[in-house]
Amino acid sequence: MTTVAFLGLGAIGRPMASRVAAAGFELTVWNRTPGRAREFAAQAGARAADTPAAAVRGADVVITCLSTSHNVAALLDGPDGILAGLRRGALFVDCTSGDPSTSARIAERLAEFGVAFIDAPVSGGTSGAEKGILTVMVGGEAAALERARPVLESFGRKIVHCGAVGAGDAVKAMNNAMLAIHVWSTGECLAALSRAGVDPKVALDVINASSGRSNTSENLFPERVLSRRFPRTFRLALLDKDIGIAAQVAREQKIASPVLQLTAELFRMAHAELGEDADHVEAVRVIERLGDTEIK
Amino acid sequence: MTTVAFLGLGAIGRPMASRVAAAGFELTVWNRTPGRAREFAAQAGARAADTPAAAVRGADVVITCLSTSHNVAALLDGPDGILAGLRRGALFVDCTSGDPSTSARIAERLAEFGVAFIDAPVSGGTSGAEKGILTVMVGGEAAALERARPVLESFGRKIVHCGAVGAGDAVKAMNNAMLAIHVWSTGECLAALSRAGVDPKVALDVINASSGRSNTSENLFPERVLSRRFPRTFRLALLDKDIGIAAQVAREQKIASPVLQLTAELFRMAHAELGEDADHVEAVRVIERLGDTEIK
Amino acid sequence: MTTVAFLGLGAIGRPMASRVAAAGFELTVWNRTPGRAREFAAQAGARAADTPAAAVRGADVVITCLSTSHNVAALLDGPDGILAGLRRGALFVDCTSGDPSTSARIAERLAEFGVAFIDAPVSGGTSGAEKGILTVMVGGEAAALERARPVLESFGRKIVHCGAVGAGDAVKAMNNAMLAIHVWSTGECLAALSRAGVDPKVALDVINASSGRSNTSENLFPERVLSRRFPRTFRLALLDKDIGIAAQVAREQKIASPVLQLTAELFRMAHAELGEDADHVEAVRVIERLGDTEIK
Amino acid sequence: MTTVAFLGLGAIGRPMASRVAAAGFELTVWNRTPGRAREFAAQAGARAADTPAAAVRGADVVITCLSTSHNVAALLDGPDGILAGLRRGALFVDCTSGDPSTSARIAERLAEFGVAFIDAPVSGGTSGAEKGILTVMVGGEAAALERARPVLESFGRKIVHCGAVGAGDAVKAMNNAMLAIHVWSTGECLAALSRAGVDPKVALDVINASSGRSNTSENLFPERVLSRRFPRTFRLALLDKDIGIAAQVAREQKIASPVLQLTAELFRMAHAELGEDADHVEAVRVIERLGDTEIK
Repeated sequence: MTTVAFLGLGAIGRPMASRVAAAGFELTVWNRTPGRAREFAAQAGARAADTPAAAVRGADVVITCLSTSHNVAALLDGPDGILAGLRRGALFVDCTSGDPSTSARIAERLAEFGVAFIDAPVSGGTSGAEKGILTVMVGGEAAALERARPVLESFGRKIVHCGAVGAGDAVKAMNNAMLAIHVWSTGECLAALSRAGVDPKVALDVINASSGRSNTSENLFPERVLSRRFPRTFRLALLDKDIGIAAQVAREQKIASPVLQLTAELFRMAHAELGEDADHVEAVRVIERLGDTEIK
Repeated sequence: MTTVAFLGLGAIGRPMASRVAAAGFELTVWNRTPGRAREFAAQAGARAADTPAAAVRGADVVITCLSTSHNVAALLDGPDGILAGLRRGALFVDCTSGDPSTSARIAERLAEFGVAFIDAPVSGGTSGAEKGILTVMVGGEAAALERARPVLESFGRKIVHCGAVGAGDAVKAMNNAMLAIHVWSTGECLAALSRAGVDPKVALDVINASSGRSNTSENLFPERVLSRRFPRTFRLALLDKDIGIAAQVAREQKIASPVLQLTAELFRMAHAELGEDADHVEAVRVIERLGDTEIK
Repeated sequence: MTTVAFLGLGAIGRPMASRVAAAGFELTVWNRTPGRAREFAAQAGARAADTPAAAVRGADVVITCLSTSHNVAALLDGPDGILAGLRRGALFVDCTSGDPSTSARIAERLAEFGVAFIDAPVSGGTSGAEKGILTVMVGGEAAALERARPVLESFGRKIVHCGAVGAGDAVKAMNNAMLAIHVWSTGECLAALSRAGVDPKVALDVINASSGRSNTSENLFPERVLSRRFPRTFRLALLDKDIGIAAQVAREQKIASPVLQLTAELFRMAHAELGEDADHVEAVRVIERLGDTEIK
Repeated sequence: MTTVAFLGLGAIGRPMASRVAAAGFELTVWNRTPGRAREFAAQAGARAADTPAAAVRGADVVITCLSTSHNVAALLDGPDGILAGLRRGALFVDCTSGDPSTSARIAERLAEFGVAFIDAPVSGGTSGAEKGILTVMVGGEAAALERARPVLESFGRKIVHCGAVGAGDAVKAMNNAMLAIHVWSTGECLAALSRAGVDPKVALDVINASSGRSNTSENLFPERVLSRRFPRTFRLALLDKDIGIAAQVAREQKIASPVLQLTAELFRMAHAELGEDADHVEAVRVIERLGDTEIK
């Protein structure tokens, strides 16, 4: 029977790990805050480990779900690190929204230990994780993906092989960059209309029946901006990181990408201004503040 | 019975005028190329006039559908101009995708002649016009809109009062600006992914199931870019004009709008590069050429 | 003997008017705050008028020096307005840092009254005005410039005919746009170097001996930023206005100008953030705040 | 007596190496095209080596002057690589306009071999190299700089210690980024003025007496653009690389830098459009072409 180690029980990682346990895999978890791991283990019928090395010892599949690829890389080394516990032939599945070049370096490192790596970032949010209907974007060898598939299916409904190592990261980053561009530009356009005396509800009603519509205009603005609710579901700090990765990928690929690069700067500015806890849609508040208006 | 004058039988104007005639209004048409007006009149059971003045003489409702507000303003004066024929108490409906400040000037001018003005740009394309299912964005007095409504309903299904004179123009321009931003930014992101070895079909499949999706990613890119068909349905030159209007509105409203302003420049560049006949989605070709790649 | 009316005794206008009086011209002044005009008149041996109409009555040359072209246009009409006092054959010299299209409208208006117009914005600051060594950028007929020259020479050393009406405004706006671009971009580059551990003094020492140098790097940064003095000599609000005019000119001329357009947005943002009293060089504080660093 | 190895006899490297030989150092040179090395050696009284390893064998100081840091890194390994010949205790001076992170990796690598590294990019062009009056921007230990100083003084007049390893690269990149921003933005502003009917010579005359002046407006535009000469002294391809490094440094330092990032994209676009041989000032041709004007 496949044994799984799951490292990183954050907002998304925790419900993903729950799905893995519920699917019947033998599960060991680790989290930087040990209490969180023990509490989870008690609830989910899993084992909690004190160190990454202990968590992965004997595991067939190791799943990581951290904030950045650098966080993953930082868990590899040292006496308590993943490499100290990992067995040859294991499979490493990184569900972090990572960056392709760090993923490539991690993959290279693991290959020296006879361990295959796939990057497998997810989209769908906390509720998608709870329901097991995440989209999983996979980079790496097709064979490695096939080995991982039974575990991925415990939390993912749409599992897409995007290409070589890093391709999953790249697709995830670009999707999120497009989200960021939509949030910011919809904010600019609606703030201007609002100041020009147009009710944003009316404007969105028209736009959502026309060519300018997006998921952002159809869902995020009505539910979060016009309502002034701004629920905190996905941190601006993380979207800043993601569009930064996308901007880096475009630079490496030598694609002239002025809109992407500029929006990356604007999210950096919004992040610096609104801090670590703000939701990604709150970036709109910067436009509102500077324009002395509210989109409502 | 309401008599209607329709000036401007272009790609959108012609099917709109057809709907007006088919709805039983007594119709006189005028077009810069007189043959086009005569041919239309013969087919549609309308009357063709040789001059704007002659076209609007005695009309209850005058509809204009030209390329720019400046084109409309230029038809007002002179012995053959609209003002020479217009009767007091008539209603002027400008379906041009115009700019709010020129519309305001036109409205002011017409008010001196006892004529009410609404700006009423449409969206939905040629096929929407043919089917009478356009969206009509109206700026002006509510009472004027009510007077116009029976005629507007001959070609429009969703008729939305956006605000004072110019508000229809502003909403139309912003919708199209959002379209332009989506086209350009989706082009940047997919070109980068494509160069990174990701199949754009796969990338779109994921994005269209995720938060980065838009009408552009769901419809325009699969049908027009990946297929390499680039049908010519809406000219880049016009979208350049529209995002220019949107950029101007944002400036006048003192909304910091770097993404909008930058994309307006990029469409100016694409327009200069690809010429007057290119379709709006072909802007992507500029990104492709500079990145030495094709999104397919 | 030439009689001169001078309207607008602001930071630059006051010393300019002083030079006009000192050169022996018969001078009448007007200012929105009447006390300021009376005080000036007492000191300078000039006459103070209570209204624009009274100020310009009988004047051969009318000089305006206000914040914007709109301010100038707003003084023309009404019973106390300039047009109520102006005599046919007078010459109107607008030293405001204005915008070409409003200047063209003002010139057209004045022509109906038989009055010639030149736009004649100045550079050189308060101290340049006091010393009579301003640079004057003139738009309008060469003959009108020649008539104005004796008065212009009382405060200007370099008097340049730039072209037709509006050309002086355009050159002034572009010079200031270049200043704004230099201030902002030097701020970005030095903030990054500073965070990277390079002493900004050392960096400027190298840059000022190399190809990246500008008036901004040679003078403004050493004297105002590194010193943390930020003296208030030219308001950010006015530079925001000026680069906005430049951006508008470039748009009207259909020049793709992404750097100019973007920087105009950044100055709008900085103006909204730092308020009406901040000096133009303080725009750098926005970069510093967002990057959590100081260039010193 | 100090023996020196010089690798890379390009446009700048060759006259630098000449100065080293002329200063009496015992010199061995290597170049990718061996004929160029042999020809140089014959003229300069130096020795030509067939491989990097042979060139550096026994040298006290190794100088590299290549296109990119990656070119330098690529010469390290292999049986003919630098590391195969380098002696412990040697000093490595990289005069490439490099990037700080690759320089840091190279420095780390060399440290394992007991070799100190400084990055020492230069400015001043071919003629500055010939006259021995280059500016040298140094990153690394002060002690290493002191050891290198006698050799650096053979071609440099201003030798500036900028900070730790990579600081020289960073300062050089930022200086060149500022140059790139000045070239592009001056092009935008003068193209707009030119289209507005202002003679660019007149505009520059005013700007160069005002606050908007820079080395670019004072020297490059009069000599190269208005004259339509566009001499090829510094390739656009290299300036594209340099501003790319600067953009990367700003990102790593988390400085919001929209103008820098955007201009980096514009130079990428210009490079893609104008090819490998164009001079850096020719970037202006892109603005001219898109605006259908010439600045002359």
